[in-house]
Amino acid sequence: MPYNIADPGRDLDDLIVRRAEVFRQKQGIDLRTGHLAEQIDPSSKVVIARNAEGNREEVAYDKLLIATGARPVVPDLPGFDLPGVMTLKELEDGRRIKAYIEDHHVRRVAIIGMGYIALEMCEALRARDLEVAMVKPRPRFLPWMNESLAAMVKEEVEENKVTMYPGHEIKAIESDGKGLRAVCEDLELEADMVLVAVGVKPCSELAENAGLELGIKRSISVDRSLRTSNEHIYSTGDCADSYHVVTGRKTWIPLALRANRGGWAVADNVTGKRVELDGVAGTAVFKVFDLQVARTGLNSDEARAYGFEPAEVVIQARTRAHAHPGSSTIGVYMVGDTKSGRLLGVQMVGKEGVAHRVDAPAVALHAGMAVDEFSQTDLAYTPPFGPTWDPMLIAANQLLKKM
Amino acid sequence: MPYNIADPGRDLDDLIVRRAEVFRQKQGIDLRTGHLAEQIDPSSKVVIARNAEGNREEVAYDKLLIATGARPVVPDLPGFDLPGVMTLKELEDGRRIKAYIEDHHVRRVAIIGMGYIALEMCEALRARDLEVAMVKPRPRFLPWMNESLAAMVKEEVEENKVTMYPGHEIKAIESDGKGLRAVCEDLELEADMVLVAVGVKPCSELAENAGLELGIKRSISVDRSLRTSNEHIYSTGDCADSYHVVTGRKTWIPLALRANRGGWAVADNVTGKRVELDGVAGTAVFKVFDLQVARTGLNSDEARAYGFEPAEVVIQARTRAHAHPGSSTIGVYMVGDTKSGRLLGVQMVGKEGVAHRVDAPAVALHAGMAVDEFSQTDLAYTPPFGPTWDPMLIAANQLLKKM
Repeated sequence: MPYNIADPGRDLDDLIVRRAEVFRQKQGIDLRTGHLAEQIDPSSKVVIARNAEGNREEVAYDKLLIATGARPVVPDLPGFDLPGVMTLKELEDGRRIKAYIEDHHVRRVAIIGMGYIALEMCEALRARDLEVAMVKPRPRFLPWMNESLAAMVKEEVEENKVTMYPGHEIKAIESDGKGLRAVCEDLELEADMVLVAVGVKPCSELAENAGLELGIKRSISVDRSLRTSNEHIYSTGDCADSYHVVTGRKTWIPLALRANRGGWAVADNVTGKRVELDGVAGTAVFKVFDLQVARTGLNSDEARAYGFEPAEVVIQARTRAHAHPGSSTIGVYMVGDTKSGRLLGVQMVGKEGVAHRVDAPAVALHAGMAVDEFSQTDLAYTPPFGPTWDPMLIAANQLLKKM
Repeated sequence: MPYNIADPGRDLDDLIVRRAEVFRQKQGIDLRTGHLAEQIDPSSKVVIARNAEGNREEVAYDKLLIATGARPVVPDLPGFDLPGVMTLKELEDGRRIKAYIEDHHVRRVAIIGMGYIALEMCEALRARDLEVAMVKPRPRFLPWMNESLAAMVKEEVEENKVTMYPGHEIKAIESDGKGLRAVCEDLELEADMVLVAVGVKPCSELAENAGLELGIKRSISVDRSLRTSNEHIYSTGDCADSYHVVTGRKTWIPLALRANRGGWAVADNVTGKRVELDGVAGTAVFKVFDLQVARTGLNSDEARAYGFEPAEVVIQARTRAHAHPGSSTIGVYMVGDTKSGRLLGVQMVGKEGVAHRVDAPAVALHAGMAVDEFSQTDLAYTPPFGPTWDPMLIAANQLLKKM
């Protein structure tokens, strides 16, 4: 949605991959939109819903999939329900934001939060030439990221004239009738619109009330076949947890590929083809202005928390070969386990060649590869796309010296 | 060099990574340029050379590295020694080509061959607005490549106004004093300059005359520690062979990363740190006009030749997410072994996101991963850089159905 919001001429409906009618007509699915599922009764295998007219409906099941997703966290503070205070999750949110910008001649936007969505949205709003300020409570920007790589991202955002206020905790949003004010202890940001992007939480209440086991961050706990603690109920998508291939333990990383893959796997499992999912490597990528930012696996803090003894390295290399025009800096952070030799994680920042480069260490994490093995891989080289030694190999070679 | 040749304003010396004086002064290496090594006497551990004055010199060694590289194949046919008939390997070749283009007001170039160098050079020459025609004996363009992907490359080359004549075997090059003529059975190409780019062969004569074992395509046979059949003599770079991580057998794929990596590994081995190299996956990438073309591992013909029972698939996907502007087609070819389930190779063509994407299957080949495992990997997703299901995952899912 941020990329669509960036362009006032584009219709948000462009983003619809498949309309409800297609499910109904082409696939023969009894798709009941406008229904709120209120309760699951696992003992009688029935879902109790309320339809658009407010009437109670019961839907019996043999197998049930809970795919309720996640919703934005909205702090329980004064003024977060004011008109002009937005979140971005549903298509309807996008519509609301686009309409509000136009209807209220929005010039200044305050964004609360500095994560993926906040950063993608700050780019989208700057593309529409709006003034953007960002605020968050913790002083550290992208706290999961190596500090020198995070500094590259911060610089890119600031160069694009976004004002950043890390270390300021929001206390309230106020309105004076003309505009909004995001109020912190020692800071006030005036804005025509406020975007709240402080993260999401799983929509797991329905599952919890049905007695299903919840896991990390109250996500719905599922096994490798996406089955919940009830053998007839599956769950996947942003509401459900998954296994992390590096730690072997449960994690909750609500991202698109896992959600989509989980949907197919449940379909297979309920129709009789047994499928188990390996898990996630924690691979994520986002674009902010001209920078690509990617990660896979663990950082050293996470590694330590899971009992590894991490060594880490951060290097700077070039995105193109020696003397090739148009080259820029690429930063690579890499973590390995000094005990087992295993590769544990990689982070990367650069103007080009980051988004897909991170897939290589992601595959290595799935394979449980050692840093030494990874350092020997035959990665692609041609001058327009990298140096002879890929930046990841340079990082791996440096990391090996520390291990 | 092609990228430098494309720009008449750039000095070829830009490409020099380290000058001879640096080796001599900063590293204290007795670097004897202008010396021709004529013979190795392994029994007395001496290299016999001829210096610039034509005098014989003997260089004694404890350990010897043969890094003689490869040289362009030049057909033994009439006219290939005429002025204006060029090859491109050494820096001096690049200088000669740049000077010839300017000094002789070159307008039309015929390229014999249609491999990596030929294709990179056709782009470089078109960037200088020269007329380019390419000719090769076999009718199939990029014969190692899946035909539908090769057709994408051919179309790109032709759209850039390069005339292609596959299926024409060159018989001679003739000169009429004003220009050159590349003569085939039923075709004559007039040109001011002819570039011969029909491949390279290892410079292994010195090694052969010293009684060292040669391998595939007369490359110098080395073990995983880069040692030749003589325990005191190492070899690496384009003159030496290597192991292929998919087949476990010897191969000869003269590319930059392996050459560079081999140099470091020999340095370690002769100075007492034992290093063995895993081998190559056959990863290669090149750019031709706006297309990126990459491969790793085996195609199905190669797979069959090595005793695998390959299944293959070719898919077309998009380089960006549904409805994201600027998207284009990406073609992915994938091969797996129906016996073992292993991933055997991947090829890719597209305007973006190919060069680094191929690193992921390259890592998978090193890890001996099954197609099924690869299909479960957590690859990066964000709308500007790909669909939710990465094109490689789409290919893997399709391939699994055939396996």
